[in-house]
Amino acid sequence: MTLGALACTGNGLHRGVAGVSLDHVTRVPYDGYLGDGVDTLEGLRRQLADPSSGVVPPAAFIVEVIQAEGGVNVATAEWLRAVQEMAREHDSLFIIDDIQVGMGRTGTFFSFEKMGLDPDIVVLAKGLGGYGTPIAMVMIKPERDKWGPGEHTGTFRGPGLSFIAGAEALSFFEDDALMKDVVSKGARTDERLAAMAKKHGAIKAVRSAGMIHGVECTSGAAANKAINAAFEAGAIFSTCGPGGRVIKLIAPLTIEDDVLDKGLDILDKSLAKAS
Amino acid sequence: MTLGALACTGNGLHRGVAGVSLDHVTRVPYDGYLGDGVDTLEGLRRQLADPSSGVVPPAAFIVEVIQAEGGVNVATAEWLRAVQEMAREHDSLFIIDDIQVGMGRTGTFFSFEKMGLDPDIVVLAKGLGGYGTPIAMVMIKPERDKWGPGEHTGTFRGPGLSFIAGAEALSFFEDDALMKDVVSKGARTDERLAAMAKKHGAIKAVRSAGMIHGVECTSGAAANKAINAAFEAGAIFSTCGPGGRVIKLIAPLTIEDDVLDKGLDILDKSLAKAS
Amino acid sequence: MTLGALACTGNGLHRGVAGVSLDHVTRVPYDGYLGDGVDTLEGLRRQLADPSSGVVPPAAFIVEVIQAEGGVNVATAEWLRAVQEMAREHDSLFIIDDIQVGMGRTGTFFSFEKMGLDPDIVVLAKGLGGYGTPIAMVMIKPERDKWGPGEHTGTFRGPGLSFIAGAEALSFFEDDALMKDVVSKGARTDERLAAMAKKHGAIKAVRSAGMIHGVECTSGAAANKAINAAFEAGAIFSTCGPGGRVIKLIAPLTIEDDVLDKGLDILDKSLAKAS
Amino acid sequence: MTLGALACTGNGLHRGVAGVSLDHVTRVPYDGYLGDGVDTLEGLRRQLADPSSGVVPPAAFIVEVIQAEGGVNVATAEWLRAVQEMAREHDSLFIIDDIQVGMGRTGTFFSFEKMGLDPDIVVLAKGLGGYGTPIAMVMIKPERDKWGPGEHTGTFRGPGLSFIAGAEALSFFEDDALMKDVVSKGARTDERLAAMAKKHGAIKAVRSAGMIHGVECTSGAAANKAINAAFEAGAIFSTCGPGGRVIKLIAPLTIEDDVLDKGLDILDKSLAKAS
Repeated sequence: MTLGALACTGNGLHRGVAGVSLDHVTRVPYDGYLGDGVDTLEGLRRQLADPSSGVVPPAAFIVEVIQAEGGVNVATAEWLRAVQEMAREHDSLFIIDDIQVGMGRTGTFFSFEKMGLDPDIVVLAKGLGGYGTPIAMVMIKPERDKWGPGEHTGTFRGPGLSFIAGAEALSFFEDDALMKDVVSKGARTDERLAAMAKKHGAIKAVRSAGMIHGVECTSGAAANKAINAAFEAGAIFSTCGPGGRVIKLIAPLTIEDDVLDKGLDILDKSLAKAS
Repeated sequence: MTLGALACTGNGLHRGVAGVSLDHVTRVPYDGYLGDGVDTLEGLRRQLADPSSGVVPPAAFIVEVIQAEGGVNVATAEWLRAVQEMAREHDSLFIIDDIQVGMGRTGTFFSFEKMGLDPDIVVLAKGLGGYGTPIAMVMIKPERDKWGPGEHTGTFRGPGLSFIAGAEALSFFEDDALMKDVVSKGARTDERLAAMAKKHGAIKAVRSAGMIHGVECTSGAAANKAINAAFEAGAIFSTCGPGGRVIKLIAPLTIEDDVLDKGLDILDKSLAKAS
Repeated sequence: MTLGALACTGNGLHRGVAGVSLDHVTRVPYDGYLGDGVDTLEGLRRQLADPSSGVVPPAAFIVEVIQAEGGVNVATAEWLRAVQEMAREHDSLFIIDDIQVGMGRTGTFFSFEKMGLDPDIVVLAKGLGGYGTPIAMVMIKPERDKWGPGEHTGTFRGPGLSFIAGAEALSFFEDDALMKDVVSKGARTDERLAAMAKKHGAIKAVRSAGMIHGVECTSGAAANKAINAAFEAGAIFSTCGPGGRVIKLIAPLTIEDDVLDKGLDILDKSLAKAS
Repeated sequence: MTLGALACTGNGLHRGVAGVSLDHVTRVPYDGYLGDGVDTLEGLRRQLADPSSGVVPPAAFIVEVIQAEGGVNVATAEWLRAVQEMAREHDSLFIIDDIQVGMGRTGTFFSFEKMGLDPDIVVLAKGLGGYGTPIAMVMIKPERDKWGPGEHTGTFRGPGLSFIAGAEALSFFEDDALMKDVVSKGARTDERLAAMAKKHGAIKAVRSAGMIHGVECTSGAAANKAINAAFEAGAIFSTCGPGGRVIKLIAPLTIEDDVLDKGLDILDKSLAKAS
């Protein structure tokens, strides 16, 4: 909602409310955006290495490990490491936005574990608040932290209830039970979606990581038809990605198996109607 | 915390965290800032009326009815109406920031009732959340509202608990019991502070409106000495205004009389130590 | 014509062509703008001294010794020194724009000589180019100069002919003949204008310094009527100031006495028609 | 030298003098920048077509037909038409900066003739002033021109001498003698440079169009060595491009054959010393 965040978002609806020019952000195509095998970072890499290009190193590179609102696009570890390397080379900060896919969503606490990444700043929110209380967390490496205690704060930062809910949420990560469960429920969902993809002409592709799944439909209209049918049948799904073509599945990590199955059954029937 | 809000605030500590230039805000001295009888709006009024001045009408005039963090400075209704008139004349919005002194703080729901003011936008927060849950309210005249539903929103806008607490808080305004109580407790506090002002050399002036009171000390050091002594004795006060010279009293509107008295007793003793 | 210059100018017509927001400039009323005896700097002085005002020291104060386009308003040395003092106190640069009234216009090379002023930067142009060749000069105190040689330059900076014409123009200041002449022709013009002010109802006030004179008319319409009549009679005058009420006289410093007299005769007759 | 021009330039030295953030410009790799056969526009084309990309159409695309300071890089007509097409599709202006290579430099008045281009704005300067007098020209299609007469002007716009010199310069284009001569002298220079490229190890590539030639050396050091030797021998060349590796030849279009030959002889000998 801030000017900084609106400048970063690709969402035109939200950008439009700013009322002022949203600057200081340059967008680089995401991994896979220009087709298989195209290194989407090459243009910027050359420009940054070229003292006559007029392109100066940014203060920071900010990246999602999985583009959630962007359509459940999963970047490779290689591509993410290449972003990190560019940041290091030009003394820019490397920031990972783990708001939607951190907090265990992909089967590990952070979405980028075991990828050889070492971000300067990580942003967490959503799942952190336990069951939806408002809380977010900005983790900054001590040597990068320029703020004094309480320097950037407001009346409603850190509400008490959110701290209690958040502490309880974090306690779920003390052993690996939840993460095992996420991996297993994610795989179970993958299986079901793979079967649906074979059956339903409305599905173009399926992408996932742990318990975030994207069902890319042949069109935004088909995706809409499916989620409307699902809503009538009692399940809420939303769309994302270019043209709203991708149905996004982000069930609570603690969902019971039978509830998850019920939701997938509804999706299955709804996609049949969208074909 | 946003760039827009940081550009508006006079607080240098908070402004400093922006990291970018904070523009688009021009500050006009508040009522009384240039001494008694000086019309602090005259310079701007002439500039706006003069097509060669280079000063163009702002998008909006934003004003506090009482400068809370600024040192509990109470503007006259005349001055506030003059601001409103300038806004009307130049087709600028007239915005009242009632965050700290609205919601009954001055003895009426809005701080500016019966002043002949008709703002285009009013901002409320703090007391609105009932007992501290995070919620704020931006009231915009329908004809000035350019936003579609949900256009400017985020994950944590409007948390459920805050809505429930806020509805309960608003129910206190269904009859005039609370406001009568605020007026009476405010007057009781005024009396006590007037007595303290006579006794304690550390007090330079006392200002108030309903249940917000400012005790201006002879120096920031004296004010600090007093609030530290109070803290040791079990009561929390904070300072505000230029140089932190003003001790601010903003007790909960629902405070019990004996607790209020106890707090004032502590302040009395603490000010004695600060002289 | 640059964004920086357009942000500084009070001319709405020229500001309008920028097409982007013109920021980073705050305007303080000029000496005399708020009536006789009002210290127009007092508001800013207090704000800058007040750490809670939200007003931070500017990078620079930029001021004209005489507002030329602004209506031939002549500031007192006291007021100018007060601006300089504020700049010194807050470690801001003190810049004098001597573009229109420097180069001998007021009877001394700089317009601000013998006023106790010591600007960090002085800007000269117009008269510098001799007879109108394009050249300007930015004089920066060595300790304030951050630019390397040729760092801020373009294809057409410093055209050869302008350097030759400028050197010739500067040679006029080797002895005091020209300045004596300016003082004498300025005084002669003052006398004539004083006589016209008595005769013509269209004249409200006359202001001058050396060979820049402003004839403030009762209205912009009257001023326009006068200069149109003058144009018909063969003399060019332009208007300036709020509402275009001020007829500005800036004859070439080397004008012959009889040509000057002829121009003043035309003005006299033209003002008669404007009454 | 303006903020707008500095924001556009790739020259870091000149950008550095701005002192403020230079925004509102995004750089797209030039034709050939990412290697042969790579469509450097593809990334931007997809982003602009994708409503979720966060990339909004620019106010204008600005392009050089030949990157002069950038190293004498010659774009294909296909690539330039693709830029124009993107501009048309997104209702952005299509601007050609013909400052260095217009005015007959490439053998036609504009550098982009017969390429199927129809720019909204063309900028000319340098050669326009005849023999170096300061004058530039911004040609805007009438339907795109928003400025009133004299709205964006300053004291020194359009100096009289420049208009006379410019009119004389334009008279050279009344018949095709000069352009024939440029083509012939350009070809003669191409021949000489091709021979040098065979002889001198210091030369990596040669590029040209009419009478602008770039001799790309193996390193910036080699290029520097060559132009320093040439300077000692009485001829001035400058370097351009990434790392200053490219020696740029832009002789006056009216240079006599024997003077041109003499210059090329000096360059030949100087490159021998740089190997």
